[in-house]
Amino acid sequence: MQRKALTRGFEQAEFQARTEKAQALMAAQGLEGLLLLTEPEVRYFSGFNTLFWQSPTRPWFLFIPAAGKPIAVIPEIGAALMRQTWIEDIRSWSAPAPQDDGISLLSELLAPLAQRGARLGILKGHETSLRMPLGDWERLVQALPGLQLTDATGLVQGLRMVKSQAEIEKLTHICGIGSATFDQVPKQISEGMPLEEVFRAFRREALAQGADDVPYLVGSAGPGGYVDVISPPSRRPLQMGDVLMLDTGATWDGYFCDFDRNFAIGAADDAARRAYDVLWRATEAGLAAAKPGNTCRDLFQAIQSVIAELDDQGGDIGRLGHGLGMQLTEQPSHAAFDTTVLQEGMVLTLEPSLGYGESLIMVHEENIVIRAQGAELLTRRAAPELPVI
Amino acid sequence: MQRKALTRGFEQAEFQARTEKAQALMAAQGLEGLLLLTEPEVRYFSGFNTLFWQSPTRPWFLFIPAAGKPIAVIPEIGAALMRQTWIEDIRSWSAPAPQDDGISLLSELLAPLAQRGARLGILKGHETSLRMPLGDWERLVQALPGLQLTDATGLVQGLRMVKSQAEIEKLTHICGIGSATFDQVPKQISEGMPLEEVFRAFRREALAQGADDVPYLVGSAGPGGYVDVISPPSRRPLQMGDVLMLDTGATWDGYFCDFDRNFAIGAADDAARRAYDVLWRATEAGLAAAKPGNTCRDLFQAIQSVIAELDDQGGDIGRLGHGLGMQLTEQPSHAAFDTTVLQEGMVLTLEPSLGYGESLIMVHEENIVIRAQGAELLTRRAAPELPVI
Repeated sequence: MQRKALTRGFEQAEFQARTEKAQALMAAQGLEGLLLLTEPEVRYFSGFNTLFWQSPTRPWFLFIPAAGKPIAVIPEIGAALMRQTWIEDIRSWSAPAPQDDGISLLSELLAPLAQRGARLGILKGHETSLRMPLGDWERLVQALPGLQLTDATGLVQGLRMVKSQAEIEKLTHICGIGSATFDQVPKQISEGMPLEEVFRAFRREALAQGADDVPYLVGSAGPGGYVDVISPPSRRPLQMGDVLMLDTGATWDGYFCDFDRNFAIGAADDAARRAYDVLWRATEAGLAAAKPGNTCRDLFQAIQSVIAELDDQGGDIGRLGHGLGMQLTEQPSHAAFDTTVLQEGMVLTLEPSLGYGESLIMVHEENIVIRAQGAELLTRRAAPELPVI
Repeated sequence: MQRKALTRGFEQAEFQARTEKAQALMAAQGLEGLLLLTEPEVRYFSGFNTLFWQSPTRPWFLFIPAAGKPIAVIPEIGAALMRQTWIEDIRSWSAPAPQDDGISLLSELLAPLAQRGARLGILKGHETSLRMPLGDWERLVQALPGLQLTDATGLVQGLRMVKSQAEIEKLTHICGIGSATFDQVPKQISEGMPLEEVFRAFRREALAQGADDVPYLVGSAGPGGYVDVISPPSRRPLQMGDVLMLDTGATWDGYFCDFDRNFAIGAADDAARRAYDVLWRATEAGLAAAKPGNTCRDLFQAIQSVIAELDDQGGDIGRLGHGLGMQLTEQPSHAAFDTTVLQEGMVLTLEPSLGYGESLIMVHEENIVIRAQGAELLTRRAAPELPVI
């Protein structure tokens, strides 16, 4: 299938805009720098795009100064690729080097801030991790007395939540590819097919439809429904009466779709049909509530009020949707605790789930972008009734 | 292509043996527990296998006590899958919960150790990261005064380096699939094909050959050679005289192959042929040196001495191979700094690289297992001369 040829990467103006927005917020919060260690954050501000992060061996650092372009402190193996981005100041070392994996380069860069007791933003809040050895982090902090480490999680997550038009184009593209892939599922699977072959066929089809990759594919199948929503495939063959769920995060140019579809094999029982109907209508309620000015909590409650017809627990996956972009899941969370106000340009999943029968769980998911008038679907809406293959 | 049907997962005895070996080492080092946060470590001791770790939202914890089975402290969304493993004590909470994402459950579990001033092993050394919010980590440590945090990186990495026969079977399987996939490359690509289509064809073929997934695929192509070894694909069409390199980490049942192949498009110039020949012979030197009792440094020096014929820098990727298993790259490193002694059952890459011409780099890689007599290839050996397509 041929789709419009999008340009890979972004114009330099995109990175400049991201950086300047961060710097305006940094100034308002009294931060003289921001130190980033994680793949999406480094990529967001630099354009550095590689799967090499899967190797845990080397740490990578991007420093956002109060003004000017970011500075990369990275292993030499990445320097050639970083030189293709808009970053000019690239400081590299021959890594791995267990005795000094970038720590002295980083200390040198940050020493002036430490000497004047400046505030440095780091990511230490919800949904973050420290993507370097904790021992090296402790050594770095000890080497820089005076530096005031300040949590800048909200600053960075707040920026990343609202997508640019160029980002939305990439997300629209991959959601279209995901939808076209799910459309082919009924032609590709049948009773007797082992689940691992179902997964393999789905992955191959997504690539044929134009995905770069399918980093995330989980799912389950069982009589009348499934008990788990994050499993790798088993070798169990699909059986008449199974409900099959596939949940995929496919990527194009580093941006994810994240949605699932349910299929009944041969026939569907009433309990599964009923659960599906409730979830479909819960998603409708979410679509109606997903407009600028409402909060994630509002969205959660709109979805939850429909789920409660059948189940007051909403399954137990902890939230009913989330942000989507360079990662499979991003901030915010559609949950009672999240009062983030929805804004134009946010790309979100709506993901109602419920428990039914004996320990069965059903999930349902769509991807949307928030526009001035409300939700715009990026995925082709799931069928209103549980499809039977 | 049909291969021997291997069993997915492991017998319970495998996890028991891993746990008991860890506990023996813990006893020797005076550790009363081991706290693990990262995917490969949690999977290694529990068998918990899911791609859901790609979502950064939730932390996961596995505690190895001084005796008995590991204890899982995990988000509720993972409890159903964890109940399918050998783990019995599963403590879960409804996550995400920014105010308390498992911290009070974990504090309760660790409080007895803290009260008696016990030593708790954590991973804070080379090649590790802290896969939870740093802020939550600091709160946990503050809540447990008296607990002596001790680096157990060497303990865990030392265990994981030496593979069991069941692990070697999975690694042999995926390396066979990777080799069969590379064998098809000459039939699938040709001058004029954009690099992104080369990548897509490779991924589809690897799945057809039986891979579960191809999480890692990087590569480059350019006139006479390439300048970067970790790039995503561009849309540039392959041209006569290009050297194309593809480097893949494909997976089966959670185990990786990691190797690359080079191809000349239409014709190869002398410089590329010469670089290829040196790398091929450097790998031969590595194969000869890869036997029990030699160190990683010995292996490094054996490979480096051949590379030095053409280039005394060995490219600049920092090492000439590494461990391989549940991750694309694992300990140890074939580098001058690594004095790890090679043992039977270690699965390794041999990965010579060199710089040549004007800023060109060439890489070459094979995967091996160390046997009593020396190296056994898991990959089908690369052709001795640069293949021309």
